[in-house]
Amino acid sequence: MKLKPLSDRIVLEPISQEEKTKSGIVLPETVDKEKPEQGKVIAVGPGRILADGKRALMSVKVGDKVMFKKYGPDEVKVGDKEYLIVSEEDILAIIS
Amino acid sequence: MKLKPLSDRIVLEPISQEEKTKSGIVLPETVDKEKPEQGKVIAVGPGRILADGKRALMSVKVGDKVMFKKYGPDEVKVGDKEYLIVSEEDILAIIS
Amino acid sequence: MKLKPLSDRIVLEPISQEEKTKSGIVLPETVDKEKPEQGKVIAVGPGRILADGKRALMSVKVGDKVMFKKYGPDEVKVGDKEYLIVSEEDILAIIS
Amino acid sequence: MKLKPLSDRIVLEPISQEEKTKSGIVLPETVDKEKPEQGKVIAVGPGRILADGKRALMSVKVGDKVMFKKYGPDEVKVGDKEYLIVSEEDILAIIS
Amino acid sequence: MKLKPLSDRIVLEPISQEEKTKSGIVLPETVDKEKPEQGKVIAVGPGRILADGKRALMSVKVGDKVMFKKYGPDEVKVGDKEYLIVSEEDILAIIS
Amino acid sequence: MKLKPLSDRIVLEPISQEEKTKSGIVLPETVDKEKPEQGKVIAVGPGRILADGKRALMSVKVGDKVMFKKYGPDEVKVGDKEYLIVSEEDILAIIS
Amino acid sequence: MKLKPLSDRIVLEPISQEEKTKSGIVLPETVDKEKPEQGKVIAVGPGRILADGKRALMSVKVGDKVMFKKYGPDEVKVGDKEYLIVSEEDILAIIS
Repeated sequence: MKLKPLSDRIVLEPISQEEKTKSGIVLPETVDKEKPEQGKVIAVGPGRILADGKRALMSVKVGDKVMFKKYGPDEVKVGDKEYLIVSEEDILAIIS
Repeated sequence: MKLKPLSDRIVLEPISQEEKTKSGIVLPETVDKEKPEQGKVIAVGPGRILADGKRALMSVKVGDKVMFKKYGPDEVKVGDKEYLIVSEEDILAIIS
Repeated sequence: MKLKPLSDRIVLEPISQEEKTKSGIVLPETVDKEKPEQGKVIAVGPGRILADGKRALMSVKVGDKVMFKKYGPDEVKVGDKEYLIVSEEDILAIIS
Repeated sequence: MKLKPLSDRIVLEPISQEEKTKSGIVLPETVDKEKPEQGKVIAVGPGRILADGKRALMSVKVGDKVMFKKYGPDEVKVGDKEYLIVSEEDILAIIS
Repeated sequence: MKLKPLSDRIVLEPISQEEKTKSGIVLPETVDKEKPEQGKVIAVGPGRILADGKRALMSVKVGDKVMFKKYGPDEVKVGDKEYLIVSEEDILAIIS
Repeated sequence: MKLKPLSDRIVLEPISQEEKTKSGIVLPETVDKEKPEQGKVIAVGPGRILADGKRALMSVKVGDKVMFKKYGPDEVKVGDKEYLIVSEEDILAIIS
Repeated sequence: MKLKPLSDRIVLEPISQEEKTKSGIVLPETVDKEKPEQGKVIAVGPGRILADGKRALMSVKVGDKVMFKKYGPDEVKVGDKEYLIVSEEDILAIIS
């Protein structure tokens, strides 16, 4: 049972707060609902279609740890695991 | 009696909750009205027209099971079956 | 007395509810004011002008039965017949 | 004393209700303020400039009777005659 | 002391109501604040830059009498003369 | 200590009211908060990037006196001098 | 532990008020919440993808001191250091 995202969409497994602390990156408390979150890339779409019909190359790959920001990301459950689906433009940076 | 969608539109047969549970993908309860739904692709348009007049290739095909998200999708009845018409950009991922 | 639509506009003759039931496609009651309607194509524009000055090919032809959706379509009367003028992007599917 | 419209603008002489009835096309009463009106083309601009600097061809010519729709068209008086100035995109169809 | 407008901007000297009556074009009283006005072209910009970096040709020249429409045009004084600065898209027609 | 503006941004030194009167161009009192102001060009960006990746040529150069209009321009202080940072599109005309 | 920004995003280390005074550039008190701030470039993305699929060249490099302006920039903590993530278009000028 797998999700194959379309266009520039990316399936993310959210990283729990404990893991974030361990990695050394902590997000400050904020009233802004659009604060950045962290996730692990599970699946990557083929890229959005450009004006000439070709696809833009994707900048993340499966396994990358990323920082993303999206108001109300799409949440899905596969079995008992929760995933998020975001667009590449919602990804701020790869954490390395 | 058939529907032949235009541009990048797609005719979907919604998948009932029971089928979803069987497939192992469950959507969490949410207050967000734009939560993703699942459907089976019944018909696919020829693709939207790009700036140079050519059509963008469609990424889904008849028979695909997809996860889509759209506020107020267009609902139609053919005979006693209910279908939805969405644009390709409303489709988040193919379920495989 | 005829209407020759411009750009990607299409003149439609609305299909009455009785005809719709006969055709086997029924639209559910809904509170959404933008629910799809059905019509017969009476006249087709030459297509909208693309970025390079050429016209996009139209996907419907005179005589097609179509499903369309538009908030407040332009209504005109030729003699005692009522017509609607919509853009091609308001047409969801051809009914065949 | 003449008006030479710029870009895709068109100078129209509005057609009075009596003339409209005579022509066989009648517009229904409606609460929508943006209902289509009829006019005769008096002058036509050279066409709007496309992305590559060329001009899009105009689809109407002087003398055409057209159906147009515009909220608050620009009204001018030349001598004691009233004219309207609209963009080509406000023109729905040529009446023939 | 002169103004050299940038892009597709045009410097206009407004034409007084008396001159307008003399020319035979009169604008009706209206509650719409965006009613067309008349002006004489004093200076013309080089044209706006198109997608390919070239400039679009300007359609008006110094000395033209034009009809323009702009909400809150930019007003400047050179010495004791008042001028307006508008974009070419605010110009509806050349009066000839 | 210098500012090197990016894209089509321009660093301006505002011209005081006394200097403006001396130059013969006076701006009328107005309730419109977006009234044009005058400034001297201190630094010029390399130009904004066009669709093909090249940069649009800038139309102003260091030393030009310009008329600009911007709601809430960005104000910075270098030492005890106040500067403004605007985009080229906020510049209406060069004063010569 | 590092952040590798995507597209035209830039990771900035904010410059404290004391450092700003030392550098000779001071920002005036203002009620505008979008007032420019200063930062040091820590990491630079590969550039946004243009219409033809190529990337626009970035205009800042690691180590540059920049003036930026953004409402609600994305704030992250790496270890106990606070960083901001902005887009290149939020950067007004390089301070040299």
